[in-house]
Amino acid sequence: MTIAESVILIDKLIQEYLKEAPENNLYHPIDYIMNLGGKRLRPALAVIANQYYYGELSHIQQPALGVEVFHNFSLLHDDIMDNAPLRRGKATVHEKWNANSAILSGDAMLVQAYQLVCDTPSPQLTQMLTLFSQTALEVCEGQQLDMDFEKREDVSIEEYIEMITLKTSVLLACSLQMGALSAGATAENASWIYQYGLNMGIAFQLIDDFLDAFGEAAKVGKQVGGDILANKKTFLALKAKELASKDEQELLMNLESETDHQKKVHETLAIFKKLKVDSLIQELSAEYYHKAIEHLNKTNGEPKIKEELLSFSAGLMNREF
Amino acid sequence: MTIAESVILIDKLIQEYLKEAPENNLYHPIDYIMNLGGKRLRPALAVIANQYYYGELSHIQQPALGVEVFHNFSLLHDDIMDNAPLRRGKATVHEKWNANSAILSGDAMLVQAYQLVCDTPSPQLTQMLTLFSQTALEVCEGQQLDMDFEKREDVSIEEYIEMITLKTSVLLACSLQMGALSAGATAENASWIYQYGLNMGIAFQLIDDFLDAFGEAAKVGKQVGGDILANKKTFLALKAKELASKDEQELLMNLESETDHQKKVHETLAIFKKLKVDSLIQELSAEYYHKAIEHLNKTNGEPKIKEELLSFSAGLMNREF
Repeated sequence: MTIAESVILIDKLIQEYLKEAPENNLYHPIDYIMNLGGKRLRPALAVIANQYYYGELSHIQQPALGVEVFHNFSLLHDDIMDNAPLRRGKATVHEKWNANSAILSGDAMLVQAYQLVCDTPSPQLTQMLTLFSQTALEVCEGQQLDMDFEKREDVSIEEYIEMITLKTSVLLACSLQMGALSAGATAENASWIYQYGLNMGIAFQLIDDFLDAFGEAAKVGKQVGGDILANKKTFLALKAKELASKDEQELLMNLESETDHQKKVHETLAIFKKLKVDSLIQELSAEYYHKAIEHLNKTNGEPKIKEELLSFSAGLMNREF
Repeated sequence: MTIAESVILIDKLIQEYLKEAPENNLYHPIDYIMNLGGKRLRPALAVIANQYYYGELSHIQQPALGVEVFHNFSLLHDDIMDNAPLRRGKATVHEKWNANSAILSGDAMLVQAYQLVCDTPSPQLTQMLTLFSQTALEVCEGQQLDMDFEKREDVSIEEYIEMITLKTSVLLACSLQMGALSAGATAENASWIYQYGLNMGIAFQLIDDFLDAFGEAAKVGKQVGGDILANKKTFLALKAKELASKDEQELLMNLESETDHQKKVHETLAIFKKLKVDSLIQELSAEYYHKAIEHLNKTNGEPKIKEELLSFSAGLMNREF
């Protein structure tokens, strides 16, 4: 099975699952957000890891769906917290309904995620559950750090990496490890594939930060400079502040309150380039990528799938969007 | 073990659990709400049901704690939705911190509840988990119905009973059944004790509605007539509307927008009494109470604990608070 085939399977399973919802208004926002699309990357990776270790597909299908429902739950609640009007170009749930509906339907999704994770005949259910709960808590901790950082001026690069690891990478790593566990992979194999996912996730997020500042708007598909305009404490902003001279630091600080959007983005990017943080973020991302590949290379599974995971990872690093 | 002893045990377990929280701001609101107090009725009933069926205490302790964490999670999120400033006389979490913290810490509590439910060596873990998830979804469905009813003028008594069953009774029933399952009780015994809890929960909620309108402020410990002032569609309001003459219906409608609080409560209560809905709610509550006791009588467990559950239930029905 390829990643593309796995995505098709997941999309089919999602539609079957949504059809079974009871008659209660609680389920309409769930149907809506699950149908907004998305790459279905996490459940697809769970399925692929199961197949990589020669597992039974029936042992991972529902838990993989559970991971996707969890991911959408976290987007739903994050959108309330960020007061975001749009998700994938459509109205967010709290905009289309209201904040109360978004809170409550999100809560129900978290319960549904657990129901799905539990819906497996795998003898490794307990291990899968322990991993899933640990990961879910870490995602909450990451979101809390992200909120804390907004109010702090002394965030270190190390803390930033910790935050993105918790907020995004652990769920990718968890998806892969759940697939491995469902297939009865050895503890080493389960751990290596987790480390692969964790490091790939960090590499991916750093590229994301780079593209938000330096990508081409048409290719990225969203406004370039969004993080700069929102004064977000990304790697670029934190590293620039660290390397800047006194004068440059003052310039950066003044730019934070600059109201001319074009000027703000343009001049901030100029300082970023002068301080070479654009190269530094790419180098750091490459470091995490290499760590990821090292771990993937240690794993022993179906050779064709390993090949596919390797090309998939390389593709993620070379994306322009 | 008595219910009182069980409450002491639970309080001790809660303190031990809270001490283990990792260092992250996410856990401060959790500590706060778990320390606001409360009767710990649900976990105490889970422990008692385990002991009633001669179970191992170690099989239910953590799952019982999980039920209490879940209950507090639902209070935390309900308080945001109701915009409530106070919970047990203290500031609610969203007032003391903010709505975002309250959403996120609530999410983490739901995950923690699952971690605790899973933390049992009981061979019945899967059954306990299935019951817990089903119940958690029902609680969300009940809260959704409650929100829906606020905007509807055609809520039937049947729908109201369905709503309070989902919003409050199922969790009491679930607590008891989890205790029974953890002890390896027969399917019949597990089902009977569930029905006992479900019917007691409805009886209890109806008494609550009665006391909110007709209790003595000093004994109830909160403002009497709160439901009337909030135009809440309780059994009393719904039944009164059903039995009222055209003139009385108009009177009730006008009272909904009455701004003189004392007059509003006083005149609404007069109509309730004239239509005898105060007696009707007590009769209906008694019906559910008798159904509950019928089911409890069918169960076979430790005789002393059965006696205690019987007196406990009778006490709940005769409370004046």
